[in-house]
Parts: sequence; structure tokens; C-alpha cells
Amino acid sequence: MRAVFVTLEGGEGAGKTTQLALLAAGVEGRGWVAVTTREPGGTPLGARVRELLVRLGGDPPTPLAELLLYAADRAHHVETVIRPGLAVGRAVLCDRYADATEAYQGYGRGLPLAVVREVNRLATGGLRPHRTVVLDLSPEEGVRRSLERQRCGGGPREERFEAEAVAFHERVRAGYRAVAREDPERVRIVDASGTPVAVAERVWAEVEDLFARPGGLCPGLGAPDAGSGPSPR
Amino acid sequence: MRAVFVTLEGGEGAGKTTQLALLAAGVEGRGWVAVTTREPGGTPLGARVRELLVRLGGDPPTPLAELLLYAADRAHHVETVIRPGLAVGRAVLCDRYADATEAYQGYGRGLPLAVVREVNRLATGGLRPHRTVVLDLSPEEGVRRSLERQRCGGGPREERFEAEAVAFHERVRAGYRAVAREDPERVRIVDASGTPVAVAERVWAEVEDLFARPGGLCPGLGAPDAGSGPSPR
Repeated sequence: MRAVFVTLEGGEGAGKTTQLALLAAGVEGRGWVAVTTREPGGTPLGARVRELLVRLGGDPPTPLAELLLYAADRAHHVETVIRPGLAVGRAVLCDRYADATEAYQGYGRGLPLAVVREVNRLATGGLRPHRTVVLDLSPEEGVRRSLERQRCGGGPREERFEAEAVAFHERVRAGYRAVAREDPERVRIVDASGTPVAVAERVWAEVEDLFARPGGLCPGLGAPDAGSGPSPR
Repeated sequence: MRAVFVTLEGGEGAGKTTQLALLAAGVEGRGWVAVTTREPGGTPLGARVRELLVRLGGDPPTPLAELLLYAADRAHHVETVIRPGLAVGRAVLCDRYADATEAYQGYGRGLPLAVVREVNRLATGGLRPHRTVVLDLSPEEGVRRSLERQRCGGGPREERFEAEAVAFHERVRAGYRAVAREDPERVRIVDASGTPVAVAERVWAEVEDLFARPGGLCPGLGAPDAGSGPSPR
């Protein structure tokens, strides 16, 4: 059965949540059933792991413990959400996945890339996305957007991440670019500046080929609606 | 600086908590400062990870996620408690460590031993105990003791572990024996049947050599009190 696994990546304030919703709408417009999910926190267990990762507390995880908590969340998510979704032919759209760990824990925190990759390989069981879109934004603009969102009450405050220095976010951004250079067919960098609709059009251009489902493979759905881009429903 | 790292292992109801306290008393009787700790849950972060591991919930971790949660707890514990304690010459006495993961997640749940060992190596940074004492008890007797303890209100109910089948605990017991066969100098199997004091004497016989601190190495403490065994203080 055909199935598609797409991940969205990017730093704080890059608009992943909005773009994931717009992408899901576009994908469903092509006759797919979309599963939107996220890491960390895409499962009930993962939501509790996420709390350990995103809230500043008296005992913040060491970098290695942080890496392993992300890995535990990922292993559980892959086994109980992503693989089951792909097994029944869904379009699984995930807000952050293994590349985030390479960018944040590897390039950002300085853990050895070999260790990060080994842990990712273990946690994912080797499952890689068909396509990964990195929403690229300057750290300054990302932080500005995040603060704006908080003032508007549009999302939970995740103190740990936003307290990080701009230098850290610069390393993460460079990390995503390195990931894209290593696997340019899978990983696409998209300019995340501008309006959500403008960004959604850029994202769609990078993934559209995956969703042209030949009618013969999918009885009852017919040919894909050529030209329909992502739009909120 | 001399320091000693000893771990206690064993199945449910084997008496690890009691034996750890008796061992600490014996060690302190030899002029050491003991740090008693445990995995999972030996740190504030770890206590929260432990909650995800020991309580039955609607979304119990997959075996791989469980392995990685234990590893996250261990990495944090090694870096923030065990290594700092050893660095200042303490006797660090820990209730469960990497061997437990090999016995439970490897032999018990059937995860590949190569994966379990790789994750352990990563989480511990290669730190191995000087000595490991496995408190050996038949699963039937262990479960009987655990239920007894619960009736007496002596400990929190940890539903997940005690709901496991006896067959699982038999595999864990065989796993500990395999670990001991692979590293007989470090890992000692001790009969955990009988009174706590009787068991404590057996435990002490297996670790006593580690705590005979020559007076010359430790100004102000003098020679060890030869012959003083473990006793509650």
C-alpha cells in the first residue's frame, strides 16, 4: 500500500504548526487521509516526556539524557503512531523528527554526531521520511514571532527553548543546512519569511510530487485533482 | 582519590532496599561516606521518568521506548550523582544499574542484547561498578514478599512490575545469572532467602575487600576497623 511520510522541521517561530495544518488540508484535497502529529509529544506517553523536555525545572536533563528522552519519545511514536499510519496508507505529516535531534542535540548542543545518529537509527528502526521540509528563518525573526505568539496567547510558553541564546539557534540553523546538504533529494530548505499562505505555496512545491496518486492504485478516488494546492478547509 | 561504586541487583521482593541501607551502615562503619541512590529515580528528573516506567497507564511504553527511558534516567544519574560522588571519594551504593536493563529489557522482554549493551554503554559513558551483588530469590518468593510489603503499607505499589507474569521473572533471573557468568569477578550472586541480617552478612562477604582502606591513603581516618560487619546505626 502506498503511504507518504513527510516531516516539517525548523527553529522556533518558523511556523511549523500553521504549515502542518495547511499541508494537511492540501494533502486531503488530493484524496489522502492525513495524520498530523509531532515530536516530542505525539502520544500520551510522549506528552509526559515532552513536559520533562520543555519546562525549565530545578533538574534540567543533561545533554545526553535529553537526547535519550527524545529518543524514547520517538521510538514510542514510531511504533504506535507513524508505522501504523503508514501501514494503512495514510499521509503521515510530522512536526519534527530525527533531523531535529541532529540539528539541536548534535549541532546545537555539541553532542557527537555519530552518537546522535546511532541513537536516531535505533529509535526510528531506520524509518526515514520520504520528504523533509525545513522552514528556514533567522533566529532573530523566529524569536520575535515566538514572543508575539505568546503575547497573543496562541500557544503554551515553553521556557526552556526560548531561553536559549541566539548563538545556539544559529548553530541549529547551520545544522539543518548541513543535514540538507547531505541528503538534498529528501531534505528541502524553504524560506519561512512572509505570510503563511506564501510559505505554504513554497512548501507545497517541494512535496507535491509525492501526492500525485495514480488512480489505478487507489480504487474509488480517481485521478488526483491536478493543480489544487494547499488550502484551509 | 579512591572511591568505590557498588550496585545491588535482583528481582521483586529480593530485599534490595533493606540491604542497601544495611550495606551503607557497614561501609560507614569502615570510615567511608556512603551515597545511597537508585535507578530509576535517583534524581529529581529521574523520579519523573520513573513515574512513566512503573505505573500502568493507558499508553505503556513499547519495549524500545522503555529501554530508552531507563537510559535517559541512567545518563542523568551517572552525570549528576554517581560520577560527582566518586570524584570526591564517596562509596556510591546504587539500587539497580545497567545490569538490570540487561536482565529485564534484554533477557526479560527479549530486546536484542547487542542493542541493550550499546544503549547501556552510551548511557553510562562506560562507567562500570567495582562490584555488583545480585540478590537471588525465586520469583514465587519475591512476589510473596512484595505482596506482604504492600499489605503492611511499607512501600508504594508499583503495578506495572508486579503484574508481570512469573515466566517473565524467571527469564530475568536467568538473565542475571548469565551476566554473572560473563563477569564473575565483578558480579556475585547471593542467596536472598532468610532474615535480612543473614542476607546482609552474605552481601558483606562479597564486597568487604573493596572497603579495606589503607590508612596511609586516607589521612585522619587511620586503619580500617578490621572485622566490623554491616550493622544498622
